Amino acid sequence: MIQPRVLKGFRDSLPKQELVKKYIISTLESEFQKYGFVPIDTPVLEYTEVLLGKGNGETDKQIFSFKDNGKRDVAMRYDLTVPFARFMAEHKNELSLPFKRFHIAKVWRGENPQKGRYREFFQCDFDIVGIDSGYADYEILSMMHSSLSSLGLKRFTIRIAHRGLFNDFLNAIGCLPYSVEILRCVDKLRKIGTVEVFEQLKAISGSSDSAQAIMDYITVEGQKTNREILAQLDRLAGGTSEHARRLHTILSLLEDNGIEASFCIDPSITRGLDYYTGIVYETFLDDLIEIGSVCSGGRYNELASLYTNEHIPGVGSSIGLDRLISALEDLDSDLLTQSSSADVIILNQDSECIPHGFKLASQLRALSIRCDHFLADKKLAAQFKYAESNNIPFAILFSQDECDQGLCTLRNLATRSDTNRLNIFEVAKIIKDGRN
Amino acid sequence: MIQPRVLKGFRDSLPKQELVKKYIISTLESEFQKYGFVPIDTPVLEYTEVLLGKGNGETDKQIFSFKDNGKRDVAMRYDLTVPFARFMAEHKNELSLPFKRFHIAKVWRGENPQKGRYREFFQCDFDIVGIDSGYADYEILSMMHSSLSSLGLKRFTIRIAHRGLFNDFLNAIGCLPYSVEILRCVDKLRKIGTVEVFEQLKAISGSSDSAQAIMDYITVEGQKTNREILAQLDRLAGGTSEHARRLHTILSLLEDNGIEASFCIDPSITRGLDYYTGIVYETFLDDLIEIGSVCSGGRYNELASLYTNEHIPGVGSSIGLDRLISALEDLDSDLLTQSSSADVIILNQDSECIPHGFKLASQLRALSIRCDHFLADKKLAAQFKYAESNNIPFAILFSQDECDQGLCTLRNLATRSDTNRLNIFEVAKIIKDGRN
Repeated sequence: MIQPRVLKGFRDSLPKQELVKKYIISTLESEFQKYGFVPIDTPVLEYTEVLLGKGNGETDKQIFSFKDNGKRDVAMRYDLTVPFARFMAEHKNELSLPFKRFHIAKVWRGENPQKGRYREFFQCDFDIVGIDSGYADYEILSMMHSSLSSLGLKRFTIRIAHRGLFNDFLNAIGCLPYSVEILRCVDKLRKIGTVEVFEQLKAISGSSDSAQAIMDYITVEGQKTNREILAQLDRLAGGTSEHARRLHTILSLLEDNGIEASFCIDPSITRGLDYYTGIVYETFLDDLIEIGSVCSGGRYNELASLYTNEHIPGVGSSIGLDRLISALEDLDSDLLTQSSSADVIILNQDSECIPHGFKLASQLRALSIRCDHFLADKKLAAQFKYAESNNIPFAILFSQDECDQGLCTLRNLATRSDTNRLNIFEVAKIIKDGRN
Repeated sequence: MIQPRVLKGFRDSLPKQELVKKYIISTLESEFQKYGFVPIDTPVLEYTEVLLGKGNGETDKQIFSFKDNGKRDVAMRYDLTVPFARFMAEHKNELSLPFKRFHIAKVWRGENPQKGRYREFFQCDFDIVGIDSGYADYEILSMMHSSLSSLGLKRFTIRIAHRGLFNDFLNAIGCLPYSVEILRCVDKLRKIGTVEVFEQLKAISGSSDSAQAIMDYITVEGQKTNREILAQLDRLAGGTSEHARRLHTILSLLEDNGIEASFCIDPSITRGLDYYTGIVYETFLDDLIEIGSVCSGGRYNELASLYTNEHIPGVGSSIGLDRLISALEDLDSDLLTQSSSADVIILNQDSECIPHGFKLASQLRALSIRCDHFLADKKLAAQFKYAESNNIPFAILFSQDECDQGLCTLRNLATRSDTNRLNIFEVAKIIKDGRN
């Protein structure tokens, strides 16, 4: 006998979880499609060289890699960005630019599992490539806003900064050569706090004054509007930055379309990764700030440079699906409780009536009603328990008399009230009314 | 520079293919849910021991297996049946039986890629476990029928046999001890032909008479009805088989529900795998018989016996999604040509009007219209080409005058006819009428 168990850091998805996950994914997909985005998929296994081209030591250790039967070095994808870069380099000529894609799929990392962290998890990426403009930046931000809204979230803040503007500022204070280290250090602000960031900045720049200037740049004092914060940053960066003008364009579009209240210019957002070159952003749930960003990204202007000399600019964002789902659980979202396996179940009182049940079931399904049919020979009490544990709201029963006449009784399982002698269309109407 | 390429036997899914795949998967899922089936998922990686418990040498060679960073022997799943057996053994007490699940996911096999065969491909499995009855057998058959019908397929034949009935017959002719070898041999009938099968049967049973008797059993001469074929098989099996009675029940239900014409009793169907114990079936497209079965399965009465002493009977079926999609291509199915990335695209004539375009886009999306918005600064000819290559049926343009008044012009891209000065609701109505 083999012990039935899964690997550490992996888990099964039972129907209750899987229904929620599928509902969330299909809601997001339909939102993305409203923006004209299209889906792609890439292989789970790739050449290790292709995936690790830009990898550093830390990623190397986390990756699931091995030699396949043909002695090739292969690895399981650890994100959806690297495969997308390879995809664009390979297929650019088969696609019409600008290309707007989304990709929702599993990725794998060998990191040590902690609470809420798994070795197999979902990413949900969406990008616009082939265009470098504030309009595309705005479209991604707008799509982030409607995607989260489509999941019933109302209280969230999308925090925006601009790498180029930050670099203009670093140039103005003579710190541009340390840009990469400074951006990485500022990215840790929420984790290690202002005192430690100041010390590290002093070490990086070799000067308290520079460190203090950077702290001033990334700190917004008081209740300022986005326009005021942007004006302050622009002034600190020298007052003539094209990047500030782009942020102004984006703010105007956010205002025009009535969604500006969910956005906040926050110069302390830098994103650790090297490849961002323009706008960067993170999204926090106002009531669960501590879980960190649920949707982040930015503009990169050299997506596929590892694989091609062609210049492919883009802007994109990624939703941490597993983190978002666990946040929706913490927020007691309605999304998570509405999952039923069927709209109605035909119960099994008498095996003589099962053929009648099959006919009813097929008629109801033709009317787009999800109809379960209890086929096992069990007591009614067990059947009601089954219906309850599957959140099925209605049950169908019939007397021999109803059976003979093609009629049935519909029971509302919440109120336990019965309606007798219904025909199929009456049944369908009550169920649909109850469903909507 | 790293060469952008995928591994042999793997492939990217571009939007046109991915839209079709997603449409087919969501059509199947919604059909499964109409029967009260629920989704599950399992990890892609499992302990090699768990996956290969029942594996034979051939499967071993085909599997992607390796040692992870913790020196565990792990493997990528090569089907969805073995993980499901492990899942049932592990979670049986958390589920209400009968349990009806579907699982649509990728699996991996290292076999040598040929035309239409890949090392990464989708399986789509659905099963009813926890009940051993003809009603459950019928429900799976009925669901196979409606699933294929929901994809627009009309001309297909589901060929049914019964392992138990075959064994009753083998017992009657004294060949039961060679049952496994005989079933495997008969399974190859379509591949190697009757002469070769006869020779092999002679070698297995050690007798020409037995081989001839088996050939007679598996061969249906002339235009017989399902009832007549079943009566003949029952007679050859001794005339008192409970398995023949179960097939009679199933035939009655198929007749009652008006779908019998798509089903055919075919005693030469055996399925190679050891674990089937009852009804078995394969599905052939009448116009593409040569591609083999697109949906197969059967009843197994010891699903999880590798992992638990509990008896878990079940019946299930599996759709070969990739084979089915390539068949739909060969049949010029409408499904494959209808994939557009959006219902309408707002074109970019004048950057002054882009903010107006964003407002229109957001209003149309609120009306559930998939609205793309061309944001790059390109000539109109390039924009029309983009719309065409994405199969978008309508385009929105506006004059400065329309822009000022919140109106626009809608162009039908197939007929190239324009309608001017429309408000957003008029636009939405025309698009929705065109879509339905």
